[in-house]
Amino acid sequence: METVVRPSGRTPEQIRPVRITKNFTCYAEGSVLIEMGNTKVICTASVEEKVPGWMKDENRGWVTAEYGMLPRATGTRTDREAVKGKQSGRTQEIQRLIGRSLRAVVDMEKLGTRTIKIDCDVIQADGGTRCASITGAYVALKDAVEKLLKEGLIIGNPIKAQVAALSVGVFRGLPVCDLDYEEDHLCDIDMNVVMTSENKFVEVQGTAEGDPFDEETLGTLIRLAKNGIKELMKVQNQE
Amino acid sequence: METVVRPSGRTPEQIRPVRITKNFTCYAEGSVLIEMGNTKVICTASVEEKVPGWMKDENRGWVTAEYGMLPRATGTRTDREAVKGKQSGRTQEIQRLIGRSLRAVVDMEKLGTRTIKIDCDVIQADGGTRCASITGAYVALKDAVEKLLKEGLIIGNPIKAQVAALSVGVFRGLPVCDLDYEEDHLCDIDMNVVMTSENKFVEVQGTAEGDPFDEETLGTLIRLAKNGIKELMKVQNQE
Amino acid sequence: METVVRPSGRTPEQIRPVRITKNFTCYAEGSVLIEMGNTKVICTASVEEKVPGWMKDENRGWVTAEYGMLPRATGTRTDREAVKGKQSGRTQEIQRLIGRSLRAVVDMEKLGTRTIKIDCDVIQADGGTRCASITGAYVALKDAVEKLLKEGLIIGNPIKAQVAALSVGVFRGLPVCDLDYEEDHLCDIDMNVVMTSENKFVEVQGTAEGDPFDEETLGTLIRLAKNGIKELMKVQNQE
Amino acid sequence: METVVRPSGRTPEQIRPVRITKNFTCYAEGSVLIEMGNTKVICTASVEEKVPGWMKDENRGWVTAEYGMLPRATGTRTDREAVKGKQSGRTQEIQRLIGRSLRAVVDMEKLGTRTIKIDCDVIQADGGTRCASITGAYVALKDAVEKLLKEGLIIGNPIKAQVAALSVGVFRGLPVCDLDYEEDHLCDIDMNVVMTSENKFVEVQGTAEGDPFDEETLGTLIRLAKNGIKELMKVQNQE
Amino acid sequence: METVVRPSGRTPEQIRPVRITKNFTCYAEGSVLIEMGNTKVICTASVEEKVPGWMKDENRGWVTAEYGMLPRATGTRTDREAVKGKQSGRTQEIQRLIGRSLRAVVDMEKLGTRTIKIDCDVIQADGGTRCASITGAYVALKDAVEKLLKEGLIIGNPIKAQVAALSVGVFRGLPVCDLDYEEDHLCDIDMNVVMTSENKFVEVQGTAEGDPFDEETLGTLIRLAKNGIKELMKVQNQE
Amino acid sequence: METVVRPSGRTPEQIRPVRITKNFTCYAEGSVLIEMGNTKVICTASVEEKVPGWMKDENRGWVTAEYGMLPRATGTRTDREAVKGKQSGRTQEIQRLIGRSLRAVVDMEKLGTRTIKIDCDVIQADGGTRCASITGAYVALKDAVEKLLKEGLIIGNPIKAQVAALSVGVFRGLPVCDLDYEEDHLCDIDMNVVMTSENKFVEVQGTAEGDPFDEETLGTLIRLAKNGIKELMKVQNQE
Repeated sequence: METVVRPSGRTPEQIRPVRITKNFTCYAEGSVLIEMGNTKVICTASVEEKVPGWMKDENRGWVTAEYGMLPRATGTRTDREAVKGKQSGRTQEIQRLIGRSLRAVVDMEKLGTRTIKIDCDVIQADGGTRCASITGAYVALKDAVEKLLKEGLIIGNPIKAQVAALSVGVFRGLPVCDLDYEEDHLCDIDMNVVMTSENKFVEVQGTAEGDPFDEETLGTLIRLAKNGIKELMKVQNQE
Repeated sequence: METVVRPSGRTPEQIRPVRITKNFTCYAEGSVLIEMGNTKVICTASVEEKVPGWMKDENRGWVTAEYGMLPRATGTRTDREAVKGKQSGRTQEIQRLIGRSLRAVVDMEKLGTRTIKIDCDVIQADGGTRCASITGAYVALKDAVEKLLKEGLIIGNPIKAQVAALSVGVFRGLPVCDLDYEEDHLCDIDMNVVMTSENKFVEVQGTAEGDPFDEETLGTLIRLAKNGIKELMKVQNQE
Repeated sequence: METVVRPSGRTPEQIRPVRITKNFTCYAEGSVLIEMGNTKVICTASVEEKVPGWMKDENRGWVTAEYGMLPRATGTRTDREAVKGKQSGRTQEIQRLIGRSLRAVVDMEKLGTRTIKIDCDVIQADGGTRCASITGAYVALKDAVEKLLKEGLIIGNPIKAQVAALSVGVFRGLPVCDLDYEEDHLCDIDMNVVMTSENKFVEVQGTAEGDPFDEETLGTLIRLAKNGIKELMKVQNQE
Repeated sequence: METVVRPSGRTPEQIRPVRITKNFTCYAEGSVLIEMGNTKVICTASVEEKVPGWMKDENRGWVTAEYGMLPRATGTRTDREAVKGKQSGRTQEIQRLIGRSLRAVVDMEKLGTRTIKIDCDVIQADGGTRCASITGAYVALKDAVEKLLKEGLIIGNPIKAQVAALSVGVFRGLPVCDLDYEEDHLCDIDMNVVMTSENKFVEVQGTAEGDPFDEETLGTLIRLAKNGIKELMKVQNQE
Repeated sequence: METVVRPSGRTPEQIRPVRITKNFTCYAEGSVLIEMGNTKVICTASVEEKVPGWMKDENRGWVTAEYGMLPRATGTRTDREAVKGKQSGRTQEIQRLIGRSLRAVVDMEKLGTRTIKIDCDVIQADGGTRCASITGAYVALKDAVEKLLKEGLIIGNPIKAQVAALSVGVFRGLPVCDLDYEEDHLCDIDMNVVMTSENKFVEVQGTAEGDPFDEETLGTLIRLAKNGIKELMKVQNQE
Repeated sequence: METVVRPSGRTPEQIRPVRITKNFTCYAEGSVLIEMGNTKVICTASVEEKVPGWMKDENRGWVTAEYGMLPRATGTRTDREAVKGKQSGRTQEIQRLIGRSLRAVVDMEKLGTRTIKIDCDVIQADGGTRCASITGAYVALKDAVEKLLKEGLIIGNPIKAQVAALSVGVFRGLPVCDLDYEEDHLCDIDMNVVMTSENKFVEVQGTAEGDPFDEETLGTLIRLAKNGIKELMKVQNQE
């Protein structure tokens, strides 16, 4: 078997350089710019002192997310969803994933009857935007929660664990982690893994775009994800 | 540890009674009613002699799917999406999943420049509608393809493998397969697995709605899904 | 004048075989599958313990209807209204007709401040879907009302009369009843008649698609409708 | 039986004063203001040298209609449909009726491959707007056709007959014609009749809003409509 | 420099013949037909005894406007916004301008917690429809306010000043006022000026469609507008 | 008269610190981050080798703009327009203004049959976002044009002049330039001025939100804008 080299030159288990800038914008309760290589996402957390109508009188809070992409975040311009008049299926799928991932690590009773709304807006896209969004959103969420704690609006910390996400896949037969756009484009299998700091899975979403994959490959991909996510969590915890 | 009994009385690895009725409606090139316990879905395959604009001049075909639910398929009436003016995020997520699952087993070059559109309409919903849709849609697709072969419109069989899907999950700590609504509702972890007759994965979508899960549980769920899907494939092949 | 033979071989006053299956789906308060020849419609009645906002504080109930068609209920696939983002003018016209027809036989005071919502979903269309919907919807409505009576939620029976509907028309000069798609397609005149068991009209909607018609033809069509509707009412009353 | 007096003081067979002003606006190929009592509708006919996509290559024309109402045409302001983002079911029902009524008297082959689009915009509504729209639209259509004939764009006159419409109904037991808003509001039965100058029906749409009606009443209403429509046709022919 | 002659033959400072017909329709609290040459707009004022949700509990009123155009108000038919499903950017820009212009001369405290909604519907368009709308809307508003005063619903007159609007522009190098469509079409610079009876500006909106303009031209246009608006105000005050 | 001090402490003619970062994102043909104090806008220019349908066969190009705001660019979160399903009137007004302003300085024949689409996305909003967008958009446009020139796709420079914009207003009686949110909020008069490097006006849009203004104030505001815009143009030309 020939040796497969990643277009980026990275080793299979090597993630891209990650940088998280806190307080990126000045109004939001939490505001983060996350950069994973050339992928850049602004994640903000907004606290609203109310909950959705369907959960009224339940004495607990809610965490939800919205996702968007600037029209020229990509190589060729994408039409603006506000102009098209609706969010695409892909957008909705991603924002539902982000929301579920964050809710998995939040104790809603401790949050109280308020909503934290996370906005993830991609300003530059080079693959892995949904995973970067989750990883950045966690930090924005944590900042917002810390503000609530500091202001005495909530007593106990509602965040139960740390959460981050990474894409893994099979590139020309080689299982690799943290796909950039060039790799993602050519990948047969694409898997997004969301994990907690307790080494547990929140989401495992594997898709065979070309040939289906066997259980062994599934195992290898899971291990690559686990390792990469540990590195992401270190960056989340800096400063 | 106390013994967990499923509300349905089934054993953990036991799927619900499955019945597939072919030629359920009379106009479609493929038309199937699939029943998995109380879940009932009409799956039809419609052949259109054209492909989407973005793949013109590529000399290959396309398979896509749409999903819907009758308003009173559920215990309390759900608003009609045609009235609300848009498909929900959930609907779009499901129909994208069905389409990807079917495309994974179809050779698009052999299909020729035509589209097979699969409509999955749930008339009664008791959990597992997306998996039942995929399992039924495969049979409708196969019937439509056989008609094309019989009419000499295509030469080689474009279907590369059989595909079916099953939901698995963890119910009160017990990994079980083929969740019905009552179980699904109470499940901490919910996973949809789509597999081919070659024992490979097309999709693995696991979600922790409550507590995140570890790698061992992931393995157990995968095995439950594998076994159940084998049984589904026997039913797909009957007659 | 040459003898005109109906494509179906039926006599002018002969309706198609009619079958009404009660309890077709398991959740709705009333659920009926009506088959008129190849036309098949699922009619469900859902009881909601509230009324539309504009009739609050009037101490009476409401009956309304929605209509839909599965994309492949027809010979060539019809685009899904949920995807197009709105109901067509035809759909709205039909569901308004169904709603008015049912309301004509219900005593809204006796119904109490609740709404019965009828969903008519065509799974196979061979002409006459709006009339079949009305005829089936009445049975679903009655079943729902009987459930309310049995549960003691209402005292007196709010249903004042039985209602059913039939299409009639002029096929190649010959007035005939219960048009199927092949006839309907070639008909100059098309009339939908909704009548009560007291032999009175709720709706008379006649349209000349080709040549306008005279008063004598109107009379003949009315008589054909009257006779056919009597037969429909017998089937409604079975079991 | 007590004597029923119409709120308007009119006899049962008396229509409201009708006035048709031609060339009401200056750009349209046909432009008419029709006044029936206090109901005022602007009807314009616009000629477009193309036909809808679905009838391409059929070498014939098309006539279609759109209907609207100024927000304050009514006693209390109605929300603007352009703001709500869609036409109501009522609006669509009416514009489909107007279109069908006009097409019934036009020979589409003689019209040639062009569309005449009729816009009926109600500026003041006092009942009977759909019938006034049809009656006025016919005159606007005729003016547009005459312009086409004069310019030699079409050879033979495509208009086969004159068409007009009138509402009739049963007011407190008394069959009357040309209902104004106050009567319409209180009517048990409401019927719109569209007829040609050859004394034939294009549309008969009777609805029992309260008690259903018998065949004798149907006959009486039809006769009232016939007489009233004859008078309308005289006004259409003036000048 | 050659002498520039306006297509209309008017002198640069000459406005078109203006006519304002009060009580044009019968239901609205204020109803005006304004004609400026061939431009004709129906302006109605509707009083609603409530205010928008965002200004509840502020003990003051609101004035807002909506703008529309009949499809055949123009030389070639414009698609109906209710059919397209949304108001164009141009429409929204205009109705926001009308609303702001009117609010500038109304004391919202004196108006009380009610809304006056102005509808401006263009039935014939020959340039300057937004300015004609403002000039006509003021008269409709005043009539509605006088009705409220007469009925004792408000005590002090909330109208602080008179307001009117005029378009000015540079036609082939010549600054002129009150552009009709033919001039507007060929104009390099187009400016809409809204002024009060106190000789002050509410809005100044100048746009260079071709060559930008200098400060001297700005001054000349302002003077032309001032003079023209004075004449408009005389017509507003007639009768 | 008391001395009015601006909340920002700036002198009336002092603009906020301006910074323009080129090549802010990596894919667009022109990409700029403009910061005016706390207002931050990403402006990208995308070149498309086609023109809108309505200007086909005219052998010239087009420049257009779209505007958006991240949900948490503001003090309290604004709903996402993609979720609401349409752009607000304000958004459309702004993007139309940006497009017109840029077109005023571009020679469309020299641009050739291509479109340059400018996206202005506000990531932090502290007043003056529409003016900052225009000022930044000009630089992005120029970068894209220079790329086209360098690649030999166009010969002569289509940019005829430099363009920039500034808001001015009257704060507590004091005419000031470059309003931030706190001032804008309290301003009686708000004017946006767009000028070219030839000292001419492209747009003058003055609005009295409270008291109308006289001609002298108009003159003062124009002078403040002129001076501020000159400073902006220096920043545009740096590097």
